[in-house]
Amino acid sequence: MALSRKPLRGMRELPPPEKRIEDYLVRRIAGAGRAYGFEEYEAPVLEPLELFAAKSGSELAVEQSYNFVDKGGRELIMRPELTPSLARMVAAAGELAYPVRWMSFPVCYRYEKPQRGRVREFMQFNLDILGASGLEADLDVILVLRRIMLGLGATGERFSIRYSSRELASAVLERAGLDPSETPLAFKIIDKHDRMSREEWEDWAVQEMKGVAAADAVIRLASCSNLGSPWLRSIAGDSPAYSEMVRFSGMLESAGVTEARFEAGVVRGLDYYTGVVFELMDTGGENRRAICGGGRYDDLVGLFGGQRVPGVGFGLGLLTLQLFLETYGLLPAELSSSHPADLFLAVYSEGQRDFAVKLAERLRDSGVSVELDITGKSVSKQIRTADRKSIRFVAVVGPDEAGTGELTVKEMATGRETACREEQVAGLVGR
Amino acid sequence: MALSRKPLRGMRELPPPEKRIEDYLVRRIAGAGRAYGFEEYEAPVLEPLELFAAKSGSELAVEQSYNFVDKGGRELIMRPELTPSLARMVAAAGELAYPVRWMSFPVCYRYEKPQRGRVREFMQFNLDILGASGLEADLDVILVLRRIMLGLGATGERFSIRYSSRELASAVLERAGLDPSETPLAFKIIDKHDRMSREEWEDWAVQEMKGVAAADAVIRLASCSNLGSPWLRSIAGDSPAYSEMVRFSGMLESAGVTEARFEAGVVRGLDYYTGVVFELMDTGGENRRAICGGGRYDDLVGLFGGQRVPGVGFGLGLLTLQLFLETYGLLPAELSSSHPADLFLAVYSEGQRDFAVKLAERLRDSGVSVELDITGKSVSKQIRTADRKSIRFVAVVGPDEAGTGELTVKEMATGRETACREEQVAGLVGR
Repeated sequence: MALSRKPLRGMRELPPPEKRIEDYLVRRIAGAGRAYGFEEYEAPVLEPLELFAAKSGSELAVEQSYNFVDKGGRELIMRPELTPSLARMVAAAGELAYPVRWMSFPVCYRYEKPQRGRVREFMQFNLDILGASGLEADLDVILVLRRIMLGLGATGERFSIRYSSRELASAVLERAGLDPSETPLAFKIIDKHDRMSREEWEDWAVQEMKGVAAADAVIRLASCSNLGSPWLRSIAGDSPAYSEMVRFSGMLESAGVTEARFEAGVVRGLDYYTGVVFELMDTGGENRRAICGGGRYDDLVGLFGGQRVPGVGFGLGLLTLQLFLETYGLLPAELSSSHPADLFLAVYSEGQRDFAVKLAERLRDSGVSVELDITGKSVSKQIRTADRKSIRFVAVVGPDEAGTGELTVKEMATGRETACREEQVAGLVGR
Repeated sequence: MALSRKPLRGMRELPPPEKRIEDYLVRRIAGAGRAYGFEEYEAPVLEPLELFAAKSGSELAVEQSYNFVDKGGRELIMRPELTPSLARMVAAAGELAYPVRWMSFPVCYRYEKPQRGRVREFMQFNLDILGASGLEADLDVILVLRRIMLGLGATGERFSIRYSSRELASAVLERAGLDPSETPLAFKIIDKHDRMSREEWEDWAVQEMKGVAAADAVIRLASCSNLGSPWLRSIAGDSPAYSEMVRFSGMLESAGVTEARFEAGVVRGLDYYTGVVFELMDTGGENRRAICGGGRYDDLVGLFGGQRVPGVGFGLGLLTLQLFLETYGLLPAELSSSHPADLFLAVYSEGQRDFAVKLAERLRDSGVSVELDITGKSVSKQIRTADRKSIRFVAVVGPDEAGTGELTVKEMATGRETACREEQVAGLVGR
């Protein structure tokens, strides 16, 4: 029986046209990171399960992940996200010039039901600052995020950066009488407030939260989008977390981040966040999943013993970003066409092959990318191949060319033919 | 208890200095591929086990791999190599302009004991031509391989490209009386001839091969490195496979591939090879593992039903390549130093922060990469950080700079200071 022609569902299989889009995103995103002094690193895909069980939350680490026991009896996981591995690398590195500014393009894995924007194998972009505890670092990573979006042609009306703080949310919940041990549950409930109907969600919140005041605080937090709201000020206005949030809001405004807005309902789903949290959303509602999520995690590096190193950063899904850009027609048209080589060298007959092979090599030495015919088919069929591949220039190597070393280079789009010597080809094709 | 600071053994964890080396290799290798008109694609890491069990050989697919059953009961494998996934993509694509020239940088996985040059998670480079059955295609991929090596500064004395043909080896074995069903076993034995002592290996060959003539042929094949050898000519000189090999040898010579040499002992370890096979080795003996292995596989795409599409290509291990380059001092010295940003902007006091944030953003708009201080430490400590990060230029933003908009940019290596307006900074730092 023939083997299946399909990859497993939700896997990342990219023929060249799709790979070009991903490469374009990677190039632009990395460029934005470099503008702020970030350097690239890479971490393993396979990790010990305990690395994620510790702080990412058991839903992500256990239920929604690919985990298994290897031949040596170790409990392994295919990373569902990158941050715990980064924290380990920083803890292990010892001698680093803080603040560390690192970025990476990890491929990550989640065992979830595939749907629009959600797959099982995906590339994301991670960018983090470690060793700086101030809001200035939080602002810096948001500035990179904003530059990425603007650099891809997204105007500020297309996306919003919604932010809040887990410290502020904790302060509100504590003052509403919630036991601190219940905070993670409250965050989990708040984090899901826009994944179901309002009524359904409120019923769930009331049922889970013991006490009317706590449930009320959870429900109000989830829909509070005004730092000046009388309710918020009355319950937490005198807390340090509230003052911090007001200060952060001012910093964003002063830096001109007009896309940012406070949303107390943003808490993000990872257990390790400790301070500012944020996410980037399509304002148009076409794409309902966060394109990016991030925040501050000051206790993660300490899990590996030794020095406590504060951190802040984000993860951005390249596929959700691509869907966003496609929705608004923001992917450059030239990405849809490929020009794999500058010049196609057709071979008239086998008598010229040796000459053509050596000529092609010399042209490549001069910087021209050359596809040489390897089929031995008729010249007209060879040229049809060149045309199907959108190769811009074609030259035929026949007895004359092999004899004189002169070539006639034809530009396929215009039909214009230019006779030249091989040294002139690079200039002719624009190399 | 603290979590371990080490990744799992043999995993690919690359802090920025090591990532820079890998990036350098990827850039150079992809450039060589593009010179021949190759385009990049990507395939999944997670695959159905049967994809590899079919043709890679059960040793690789089952014993030496990470395989497991997922939550849905599917038998999965973390790809130990890329070619079967490529064959599936080509089979599924339908409308392609043949010959297809595709390349990729897959991360692959093998469950083997880590040692020098052999790890469990590794990036390799794969380059393949599909849809061309002639030796011209085989030559083309070897030319790319050679260009990769020469482009990295390896002279032809440092490496050899050893080639042979499975068809030739099969012809020899058949004529020595070997039953065709035993050919895979014979290939397995020949493939391991340089992994143990000669005596040990010969004993093994004699024991496994039924019949003296067959064992003799296996042993002679493994050490035959002369196409003109009387033994080889007497046993297979009149076979089509022998004539093909002689022709291929002539094509390599004519193309100037002086690093290539015939070695009948090269058969490669993957079951799907059908014709020419080759490998690239360090001639110095410092690195005993093949840096690259490849060959022709004409029956692989057909496994997915439909059209039979011939293929030829190779896989090149980036880590073994890096070890080779390090052995001969061929990695550029500049890879060892990082210059994460062009300019470090120190902030004199918090009163200048808002101005500095906006100034940094404008400088980034003009193409300058800027690390802005986010620590609020003393200026001397900020500058020490810039120095530790090897950032070439530093400017301090104090009350004067915020007032006049003039900056004094200091080149750290020379100590030279230049007063300028912000529009001049890009030119000053060489952007």
